[in-house]
Amino acid sequence: MSGVIVTGPPKAPSEHVTALAGYGVATVHEALGRTGLLGHRLRPVQQDVRVAGTAVTVLSWPGDNLMIHAAVEQCGEGDILVVTTTSPSTDGMFGELFATALLHRGVRGLVTDAGVRDTAELRAMGFPVWAAAVSAQGTVKATGGSVNVPVSIGGRIVRAGDVILADDDGVMCVPREQAAAAVELSEARTLKEEASRAAFAEGQLGLDRYGLRETLVRLGVHYRPHEEYSGDGPGA
Amino acid sequence: MSGVIVTGPPKAPSEHVTALAGYGVATVHEALGRTGLLGHRLRPVQQDVRVAGTAVTVLSWPGDNLMIHAAVEQCGEGDILVVTTTSPSTDGMFGELFATALLHRGVRGLVTDAGVRDTAELRAMGFPVWAAAVSAQGTVKATGGSVNVPVSIGGRIVRAGDVILADDDGVMCVPREQAAAAVELSEARTLKEEASRAAFAEGQLGLDRYGLRETLVRLGVHYRPHEEYSGDGPGA
Amino acid sequence: MSGVIVTGPPKAPSEHVTALAGYGVATVHEALGRTGLLGHRLRPVQQDVRVAGTAVTVLSWPGDNLMIHAAVEQCGEGDILVVTTTSPSTDGMFGELFATALLHRGVRGLVTDAGVRDTAELRAMGFPVWAAAVSAQGTVKATGGSVNVPVSIGGRIVRAGDVILADDDGVMCVPREQAAAAVELSEARTLKEEASRAAFAEGQLGLDRYGLRETLVRLGVHYRPHEEYSGDGPGA
Amino acid sequence: MSGVIVTGPPKAPSEHVTALAGYGVATVHEALGRTGLLGHRLRPVQQDVRVAGTAVTVLSWPGDNLMIHAAVEQCGEGDILVVTTTSPSTDGMFGELFATALLHRGVRGLVTDAGVRDTAELRAMGFPVWAAAVSAQGTVKATGGSVNVPVSIGGRIVRAGDVILADDDGVMCVPREQAAAAVELSEARTLKEEASRAAFAEGQLGLDRYGLRETLVRLGVHYRPHEEYSGDGPGA
Amino acid sequence: MSGVIVTGPPKAPSEHVTALAGYGVATVHEALGRTGLLGHRLRPVQQDVRVAGTAVTVLSWPGDNLMIHAAVEQCGEGDILVVTTTSPSTDGMFGELFATALLHRGVRGLVTDAGVRDTAELRAMGFPVWAAAVSAQGTVKATGGSVNVPVSIGGRIVRAGDVILADDDGVMCVPREQAAAAVELSEARTLKEEASRAAFAEGQLGLDRYGLRETLVRLGVHYRPHEEYSGDGPGA
Amino acid sequence: MSGVIVTGPPKAPSEHVTALAGYGVATVHEALGRTGLLGHRLRPVQQDVRVAGTAVTVLSWPGDNLMIHAAVEQCGEGDILVVTTTSPSTDGMFGELFATALLHRGVRGLVTDAGVRDTAELRAMGFPVWAAAVSAQGTVKATGGSVNVPVSIGGRIVRAGDVILADDDGVMCVPREQAAAAVELSEARTLKEEASRAAFAEGQLGLDRYGLRETLVRLGVHYRPHEEYSGDGPGA
Repeated sequence: MSGVIVTGPPKAPSEHVTALAGYGVATVHEALGRTGLLGHRLRPVQQDVRVAGTAVTVLSWPGDNLMIHAAVEQCGEGDILVVTTTSPSTDGMFGELFATALLHRGVRGLVTDAGVRDTAELRAMGFPVWAAAVSAQGTVKATGGSVNVPVSIGGRIVRAGDVILADDDGVMCVPREQAAAAVELSEARTLKEEASRAAFAEGQLGLDRYGLRETLVRLGVHYRPHEEYSGDGPGA
Repeated sequence: MSGVIVTGPPKAPSEHVTALAGYGVATVHEALGRTGLLGHRLRPVQQDVRVAGTAVTVLSWPGDNLMIHAAVEQCGEGDILVVTTTSPSTDGMFGELFATALLHRGVRGLVTDAGVRDTAELRAMGFPVWAAAVSAQGTVKATGGSVNVPVSIGGRIVRAGDVILADDDGVMCVPREQAAAAVELSEARTLKEEASRAAFAEGQLGLDRYGLRETLVRLGVHYRPHEEYSGDGPGA
Repeated sequence: MSGVIVTGPPKAPSEHVTALAGYGVATVHEALGRTGLLGHRLRPVQQDVRVAGTAVTVLSWPGDNLMIHAAVEQCGEGDILVVTTTSPSTDGMFGELFATALLHRGVRGLVTDAGVRDTAELRAMGFPVWAAAVSAQGTVKATGGSVNVPVSIGGRIVRAGDVILADDDGVMCVPREQAAAAVELSEARTLKEEASRAAFAEGQLGLDRYGLRETLVRLGVHYRPHEEYSGDGPGA
Repeated sequence: MSGVIVTGPPKAPSEHVTALAGYGVATVHEALGRTGLLGHRLRPVQQDVRVAGTAVTVLSWPGDNLMIHAAVEQCGEGDILVVTTTSPSTDGMFGELFATALLHRGVRGLVTDAGVRDTAELRAMGFPVWAAAVSAQGTVKATGGSVNVPVSIGGRIVRAGDVILADDDGVMCVPREQAAAAVELSEARTLKEEASRAAFAEGQLGLDRYGLRETLVRLGVHYRPHEEYSGDGPGA
Repeated sequence: MSGVIVTGPPKAPSEHVTALAGYGVATVHEALGRTGLLGHRLRPVQQDVRVAGTAVTVLSWPGDNLMIHAAVEQCGEGDILVVTTTSPSTDGMFGELFATALLHRGVRGLVTDAGVRDTAELRAMGFPVWAAAVSAQGTVKATGGSVNVPVSIGGRIVRAGDVILADDDGVMCVPREQAAAAVELSEARTLKEEASRAAFAEGQLGLDRYGLRETLVRLGVHYRPHEEYSGDGPGA
Repeated sequence: MSGVIVTGPPKAPSEHVTALAGYGVATVHEALGRTGLLGHRLRPVQQDVRVAGTAVTVLSWPGDNLMIHAAVEQCGEGDILVVTTTSPSTDGMFGELFATALLHRGVRGLVTDAGVRDTAELRAMGFPVWAAAVSAQGTVKATGGSVNVPVSIGGRIVRAGDVILADDDGVMCVPREQAAAAVELSEARTLKEEASRAAFAEGQLGLDRYGLRETLVRLGVHYRPHEEYSGDGPGA
């Protein structure tokens, strides 16, 4: 792999990033037509934390964190480091020493589909992390890779400068060109959710609110009293 | 799949359901001859919560929560919603809007071998959830399914009206006809556990308490001092 | 399997065990040349707890905890029980009754690549547990196995009397003969980490501190401004 | 678990079973409204074999094949043995000795979500097997279970006497009461598939044959020439 | 997700595609600096088949093959259909009817990280398939998606018109702009491999051929006769 | 990890190794009290091949095959190469060039819980391979490891010189000191299996042959006619 460190990528405007941090991952994901989630395998090491920032991407060799060192230098205020490996790895590539360096530079968090360690220390430092594994297994610094090239996690593409939004429900990526639209759509979605929440709290049914009774009819789903149903036969 | 929504299923008597909530999942599972656990993959989104209720079952298409909307209408005081999909799915089919509607109806919790989202909000609302995945990935409302048919999770069958009991150790199902017996057996099991706990706290060994020394002899397990054991050779 | 219960194995000296408890798993693992971790699948049931102790090993049949009963008798002050099965199992082989017996004997914790239950009670008791699964599924006492033979978890070998060190980052094993050296190496590693932490907190880069710029050059990793990079083409 | 061996269960009529063997699993599954598949984890040990038979069900303890011995006596001409365990297991519970006994009794195959062994011998004997794992790991005969009770595999319920149909695409269960209907529906489905195959072979598109162009329009899917599409930006 | 069907994407030149089919996946992957492999989860349904073609990409909803129907129309001579889903799915989205339609259009194969069915028929037809699952589970045609947008499988990005190369070792993607270079590099790699093969067949060691003895010394790996090695102590 | 290459380890006598090749893995595993299997994840790349040989062990860094090069030099007539990694990896560390070198030295096969590639070529060469993954993903030669130290695969320990036996049912390890006994026990087991096979072929039941009817009674398993069984209620 011809490793490359791309410098100075364009970034999503910070006002849009800040605005997106006001919405949950589930809301923004819905607002963008149910796109952008980096899969279900990335889990937070801490609870009840939400962050948004601009991606600095890292493509590393498994068992090797050399390129994270290279990436730290490319990180600045408001960034989130996004690390993946060229083949699946659970090793603890990232820990509190890296977090110390990143906090100094104003970085807001770390996202990886490999592993992290020093999780107690990371929580104590207040440096938020989303990872696919927690593992004390250390790594070497022997093989090249790339920084700020497009990477792919959970079937989604992340480019340097795209917005990363993460909370207890997972991590998503908003393409930098869509950041402004995402804010607007998320606000609209939030208003819609608020109205639904109020209606549901008063007893309205989704069946009625979303007009789903007709959908059930169209799909041939029918109602049957338990007495007329063939007992407890196999369902599906 | 010819979708059907079964209405008015029989339910386990509420006094038995309430009584079962007084025992842990591990205890009731043992009391019923080690049956009923819905596998090890369902994990709580919150900590230190135990609930019991009667099952309203949902069989959904993957990536589609239409039938959860249909099921809400079938839910009432003391129920627990139990959702599975016709093929494996990790999508976040359930979130705080559904929880709002269910709380209004007196529903006690949600159990699913698919995914949930809005986990921070669900914890804040006090609506308990057990799921196989947490994922912000949203779903559509396009394909039919069934409500209150027998479903299967973790190799166990759940019918509408059966008792669902869930805590930090997982989720189990008590067939509605066995609810009364389950209370009695669980109380007996609890007394037995209390006696064992007291004995163990004072130093009695399980080997003696349960008569296992003879079992070891019968099975040919022998004791050997370390000096006579062939060093650190391979075990199994 | 010709089951054997080995009695009186040599143990790592308690002063070294105590000293190792002063260091995190990630640190000791690094200090020992990145060896000894019992994989990434063992996760703590509690948070922010670290323990060190000497291993009492158990090799059980799946779905059967007979040999844990046999092992309790072999456990004493300062030990940690390490349980594995002859084939993969997620069953809850261990719960609060065992923990009660072990606490009475001064045992410091339980490590298993099978499952545990009674997790709420275990947290309340302050008995720390690391496991690959949480499951209420109970077990029988019908098939033999071994105690204090070498076992293997996560690709690492654990012998009776070896040091087990566990915290939020996982579980590791230090061979009993290396306990003294491990303390010394861990102290050296800690000093090195402290110096790095201080440097990183002031803005030094790992690239400079570890001389990695030359490594990048040697490996052919090059820098390229975003404008000169071929847009957002595929990375790897 | 209060083990029970149920004798003399009703069985699907043999002429329907025989007729169903004339259709592939995928076809019958579609014909029954996309129901009945025992998940995707059961894989054949051999290639290009299809069988249909009536289920004799076994619920075993993990690592224990006692109840398979009990089940052999319940098996007869035209049956297929269906084995599951009370918790997940990959052990090789079944091998050529069992197959020898079953062949003598006219049994047509073995289906299990645990493991099998002697796979080379099974292929040589012509005894077809579908399993979730291949493993030489042997089992004991120490713990009870049940025969001919309803079991659940891959989220589907199988009762004694139901039809089991298996081929290279997996294993499905047709409830015994639906066997006759299944034959009729499968024949209709086959005719429909044949017509589609002929049309597709001549170049007709599914878009036209199934009227899907309107569906695409209704769903808002639009066509865009590559030149007008925003290059190679992120997809989903 | 605002579904889009992109028409008329640029494609890698057919002479380069044809040339690449002369090399194995492992060779081309090495030749391109160890890039491009779509992970290890895609396995062939047949044995000893290698194909190369240009990608037509599909992004489908889980449990839904509507967009494969839309994609067929976009497929032509020399293409390979590449299908992924917006969240993980094992459903059998593709079978022999689709293969019939694709063969008519000169399509060379199907690659998917979801599931396929009709595997016996596909082998009989000679239509090669690589998939992450085999499952008879059918799908609906109810939810939109996209065709010929960039997709991501196994952590790698695939764009319409890129070269797909697949054999028994897996599936890889060569960006369309690199197809010519890939042919050249693969030829060079092949010559190098041939020379190594000849040398190894005559007994030369990789240690000598690749100058690795110095690497071992530099890394501190040392040789020790078994008698001087501390017996059979734990390795790592 | 202080890498070491141990030279000249003792090996199991070749006549015992040869004799063991006459028995299947399942048989020898049973003969040794159901011990020694390297788990269920190692699968053959070819069909209907059985080999036995003496282990040369390799402990490699993930994504790195440097130590396989070092190990080749330690391999000789009758050996089998056994490769594991310090953390889980699916990379294709081994292919036909290594097989060429090993065939020249009289090596009989390769066993790994990581990945292999060139599988078509390996089959064509007749070099048998058992692996946990097939992947074209290549590796580097940058990080040290060890040769001929004890390693652990599938929860079992393998030492240099131990006997490796592999066939379609998986891979097992016989400690070198037990090779002679293993031959004897396997022969006895084979005779026993032959007698059972003959009896089963004539219709004897395992229930009778192994005296299991009493076991069922002792365990409380009872027989019940279907009419008296409570219908099709939930099983476990």
